[in-house]
Amino acid sequence: MTTDANPPADANPPAAAKAPAKDPWDLPDVSGLVVGVLGGTGDQGRGLAYRLARAGQRVIVGSRDAGRAATAAEEIGHGVRGLENAACARESDVVIVAVPWEGHAKTLQALREELAGKLVVDCVNPLGFDKKGAYALVPEEGSAAEQAAALLPDSRVAAAFHHLSAVLLQDPAVERIETDVMVLGESRADTDVVQALAALIPGMRGVFAGRLRNAHQVESLVANLISVNRRYKAHAGLRLTDV
Amino acid sequence: MTTDANPPADANPPAAAKAPAKDPWDLPDVSGLVVGVLGGTGDQGRGLAYRLARAGQRVIVGSRDAGRAATAAEEIGHGVRGLENAACARESDVVIVAVPWEGHAKTLQALREELAGKLVVDCVNPLGFDKKGAYALVPEEGSAAEQAAALLPDSRVAAAFHHLSAVLLQDPAVERIETDVMVLGESRADTDVVQALAALIPGMRGVFAGRLRNAHQVESLVANLISVNRRYKAHAGLRLTDV
Repeated sequence: MTTDANPPADANPPAAAKAPAKDPWDLPDVSGLVVGVLGGTGDQGRGLAYRLARAGQRVIVGSRDAGRAATAAEEIGHGVRGLENAACARESDVVIVAVPWEGHAKTLQALREELAGKLVVDCVNPLGFDKKGAYALVPEEGSAAEQAAALLPDSRVAAAFHHLSAVLLQDPAVERIETDVMVLGESRADTDVVQALAALIPGMRGVFAGRLRNAHQVESLVANLISVNRRYKAHAGLRLTDV
Repeated sequence: MTTDANPPADANPPAAAKAPAKDPWDLPDVSGLVVGVLGGTGDQGRGLAYRLARAGQRVIVGSRDAGRAATAAEEIGHGVRGLENAACARESDVVIVAVPWEGHAKTLQALREELAGKLVVDCVNPLGFDKKGAYALVPEEGSAAEQAAALLPDSRVAAAFHHLSAVLLQDPAVERIETDVMVLGESRADTDVVQALAALIPGMRGVFAGRLRNAHQVESLVANLISVNRRYKAHAGLRLTDV
C-alpha cells in the first residue's frame, strides 16, 4: 500500500467525479467569527487563543471557573475575553475543544445545548503515559473527535490543531510557527473554515486530511512527535510536502 | 495535550536520564548491508528497491514466484537481483516487508526461519477502502509491525517507509524525494540502521519516531495522506519541522 495506491474502482462516490474542481485553497473569510476555546486556561488552549487573537481574531477562553478564565484572558491579552465554559460556548461561532482527554466527554456532555448549531473543532489527543513514554489510547468511539460527534449530535464537529507545540504557541518571541495543521471533518464548508482559521497564524497552513473516521491516527501521532521531541530536543511540527 | 506536554515525572526510564547524549544524527555505515525487499514486485517494494539500488546499495527483490522476481529485478536494473522470498530473506541482512496487508501474516509465518537474526523493516499499511475512501484497519496485534514482531520472535523488527509515493519512487526523472521517514523500533542500533538506509535516498531523512507500540498511527496515517492526495492532486510526503 502506498499513498497513491489505487483504491477499488468504486471508492469514489459518483458526486466526487461530477463536482467541478473547486480550488482547494479558496477558503472563506473567517474574520467575523468569534472563536471560543474550551480548556483555554491549559497550555494548548491558551497557546491557540493567543495566536488567533494576536492574528486579529475575536477570541474567548473558556474554563470551568469564570475567575480562572478571566485571569487567563488578561494574561493572554490581545482583547481575549474569559468566560465560564457554557457562556464561552454560547457566545462563540466556532468552539475549539482543548480540554484534557480525561475531561473530554464530561465537558462536552454538559455543553450539548450551548454547542448546538456551532462548529466544534476538537484538538484533543487521547494519550497515556508510562515508563516507556507516551502511547495512544483508543476511545470507544474511535477517536476524541468521533466521541465529540457522538455526544454533540446537534453540532458540526471537525478535528484539527493536534500537533502543535504549546511552547512555541505561547512564546511571544516566536513570530512564525512552521507547520501544517491537518483538518478533518465531514463537511467541506466546515473544514474550509477551520483551514482558514489555521492560516491566520503566520507559518501555519490548514490542510484537509480526511474524514473523522480517520481522526484516531492524527490524534495519536502526538505520541510519536513526543518521541521525536525527546530524541532530537525539538518542538517538532509536520509539513506536508508536494501540497 | 501537546507535543511537548510534560509526561508524569516517572515517564522517563532512569537509564534515559543517565545515558550520555549521543548525537542522534551519528548513524552507522550501512553500505555493506544487503537489503532484501519482500513484495519487491509490487509498486512500493519495487520503488524502494529501485531507490536503494540507485543509491548504490546491494538489493534483492523477493517474490513468491522466482520468475517474477527475476523479471522485476531486470526491469529495476542497478544490479538488483530477484529471488523467491525465502532465498531473498536468507541472503539479505536487512529485509523490508512490502507485501500487501492481506498476505502479511502468511508471508512472515512462512519465513520465520529465514528471517531469524535479521533486521526486518515493516512498511505495510493495513487499510480498507470503501465508497468514502480509505480507512485504518486495526490488526489484532495493534499494527502490522507488532504483528511482524509477534510472528518473528527471532528477528529484530522495525517499522519505516510508510508514507512514500510509489509514483515518485519509481519515476527515474525524480532526482530527490523530499520527505522524512518515520522510523520505529525497540532498539536504537536497529532504528539507526534503518535511518541510515533512508538517508541514502536523496531528499529523504530517517527520523526516529518511537516504539513499535506507536506504529499503528504511523501506518494508518496513509489513509489521511490518500485524502490529501485526492484533494490537492499531490503525492504528499511528510516533513518534521524543527528537527
